[in-house]
Amino acid sequence: MSELRRQAQDCKAASRKLAWLATAEKDRILTQLAAQLRARADELLEANARDCEAGAAAGLSDALLDRLRLNKQRIEAMAQGCEQVARLTDPVGREIAWTRPNGLLIRKVRVPLGVLCIVYEARPNVTMESACLAIKSGNGALLRGSRSALNSNQVLLKIIQECLVEAGLPAEAIAGVADLSHESITTLARMNGLIDLVIPRGGADLIKRVVETATVPVLETGVGVCHLFVEASADLDLAVPVILNSKCSRPAVCNSLETLLLDETVASETLQRLEPELRGKVRVQACERTLGLVPWATPATAENWDTESMDMILNIKIVDGLEQALEHIARHSTGHTEAILTKDLESARRFQREVDACAVNVNASTRFTDGGEFGFGAEIGISTQKMHARGPVGLDELTTYKFWVEGQGQVRV
Amino acid sequence: MSELRRQAQDCKAASRKLAWLATAEKDRILTQLAAQLRARADELLEANARDCEAGAAAGLSDALLDRLRLNKQRIEAMAQGCEQVARLTDPVGREIAWTRPNGLLIRKVRVPLGVLCIVYEARPNVTMESACLAIKSGNGALLRGSRSALNSNQVLLKIIQECLVEAGLPAEAIAGVADLSHESITTLARMNGLIDLVIPRGGADLIKRVVETATVPVLETGVGVCHLFVEASADLDLAVPVILNSKCSRPAVCNSLETLLLDETVASETLQRLEPELRGKVRVQACERTLGLVPWATPATAENWDTESMDMILNIKIVDGLEQALEHIARHSTGHTEAILTKDLESARRFQREVDACAVNVNASTRFTDGGEFGFGAEIGISTQKMHARGPVGLDELTTYKFWVEGQGQVRV
Repeated sequence: MSELRRQAQDCKAASRKLAWLATAEKDRILTQLAAQLRARADELLEANARDCEAGAAAGLSDALLDRLRLNKQRIEAMAQGCEQVARLTDPVGREIAWTRPNGLLIRKVRVPLGVLCIVYEARPNVTMESACLAIKSGNGALLRGSRSALNSNQVLLKIIQECLVEAGLPAEAIAGVADLSHESITTLARMNGLIDLVIPRGGADLIKRVVETATVPVLETGVGVCHLFVEASADLDLAVPVILNSKCSRPAVCNSLETLLLDETVASETLQRLEPELRGKVRVQACERTLGLVPWATPATAENWDTESMDMILNIKIVDGLEQALEHIARHSTGHTEAILTKDLESARRFQREVDACAVNVNASTRFTDGGEFGFGAEIGISTQKMHARGPVGLDELTTYKFWVEGQGQVRV
Repeated sequence: MSELRRQAQDCKAASRKLAWLATAEKDRILTQLAAQLRARADELLEANARDCEAGAAAGLSDALLDRLRLNKQRIEAMAQGCEQVARLTDPVGREIAWTRPNGLLIRKVRVPLGVLCIVYEARPNVTMESACLAIKSGNGALLRGSRSALNSNQVLLKIIQECLVEAGLPAEAIAGVADLSHESITTLARMNGLIDLVIPRGGADLIKRVVETATVPVLETGVGVCHLFVEASADLDLAVPVILNSKCSRPAVCNSLETLLLDETVASETLQRLEPELRGKVRVQACERTLGLVPWATPATAENWDTESMDMILNIKIVDGLEQALEHIARHSTGHTEAILTKDLESARRFQREVDACAVNVNASTRFTDGGEFGFGAEIGISTQKMHARGPVGLDELTTYKFWVEGQGQVRV
């Protein structure tokens, strides 16, 4: 048997011990994790420095090196993250129950999924975050990080496993995958019966590779080609701050704006108001009608409308009205977040009903699609799927349910 | 473009008209369907007779011919099925809502999935049942029945589509797939973007073929290798009726019993009581220890423990106690229904927690895992998956949700 399969089997067996751990015990482990992170910050920083040096020598991009790097502040944020998960409501064991006319008691009970496999890149904080969410939801976890963060992840896993053992649990319940070969991702994604859910956390390439080869269910946390439509009745005083917040507050995340759709009746005035804010700061890729009003913009290519730029790039298109905006969105949306600015109730209602996305916003920035902003606390990603979980994925979505049927010898007639 | 793809596109477009239809209008269509079924029973019986004749000539098995055949009574049952779905609660539009500290109103709203594709064999009643569940849940449906039921299904689809059109809806919302070639199943199961969920309703072979080739999400309604464990403390007066009901009341369904596990301390007495009921009626495939007590049984092969017999066949194994029963179940369960007979609270609790199945029964027949018996009304199958839906799949599970976020120009800080 391969080492990878043995690790998965050990994790599965160990996960049973986590499954029904009392909430107070899980929270004690999470609090202990926070304390250990603070106490052993120097050890962690030293290991991380070795990863960063090796990464720089290997020619990692500045963006990747930034994701890899830890400092006192980031470690404190990780520790606070553990404490935050400890404060979240435990979904395991929550139930609804009813009694049937024949006296059968049926209880629908939340239970952990079993074993989660998280596949991720550079960022060491994902190790701690994934471990905390797994522990609180009663799941085992196989963490398949990247080679570039190996030393940092080893220290983090040592801390996690020591805390588990101290609480009387098997260390294998949260395990770092030892095999970091390219193939190990595919092998993991096909371990039906041992792994219950694979969660790729990373770029579009990683997600695509996992989705295409997996036989285990995958939680697809997705690409966001998000639109904002300024409808004819929109309050233009709101338009500029909402557009700028949607596009510029953090362009490299999935809920940032890619394409601005303008109703033709308000296009000219909106563009006039936007010009001083965008020019020289944001690359504007415009449709032909927009180019007539914004001569300094670049003509948009067909591809632009389907691209998540992750950058200070904004596509702008003028449309005849709501109908055309809905058509454009239906064709180019990735089902993440779509927004409308309007004062008209019927337009708002139609937009919310017809747009097929996890979040449909009226008079609000696209940036709000987030577990914290929704009030769910920590999340493991934003799902653009329709099945199982849609939108921010928190503790609840890392569980399933089963039916406990209790009788006194009933038979079916 | 293929005819199949065009049908799927038309269904997708038409499904938008169904999505937000008022409950009263949907119920009116369902009631009308029932009336039309009764009014046009002769036309339907005539078409069905042609299917049955052709099937008999083609050498279909008696079991398959029985599934294909309609009569007045079965048509009345179909009509009552439509009326029953009309009485179920409409999940679409149900919401929970909360307001965030920044004033954002967040509404989590149930919405239809979009287009369901149901792939099934012989039984014409599945056509009507699937159409009713799709209509009530606001989904479009592509129905891919079998060639053997072609004439019956054509009459049923004519009735369904006439009722849709009379209600002002596009006929294409519920469509019979015209291409009944073997390949059409795979083509449908890979139509991401047009089809939102594929539901194979049929034997293990059909389900396996769909699961292995699909890229669209599949609702796996599964195989049931169900166990019943008679624990040391069990009330043996209950054991005989519960075992017989689990095994014999309808052996060809997924929630029927396959393997009886007996604690060694009660094995002899249980087998004595069972013998007059089983001998000559049920083929018993037994472990070695059981064979010592039941010499007329057949020795069980390794394969028997993993086979869903769909027949009057029962595997029997004697175990040392709860631990060994749990081990056997963990190794051979398909995650459908597992039961224990016990008077001991701690054994019941441990069995319910540790057994990983959609239904875990204490002192009740395995046959209760069913949408009707659970009080959900009509179901489209029993899911043995953990993601999205587990157990009986009714209207709720044929929907997803989206978040409607409403603000007054909020931006994220």
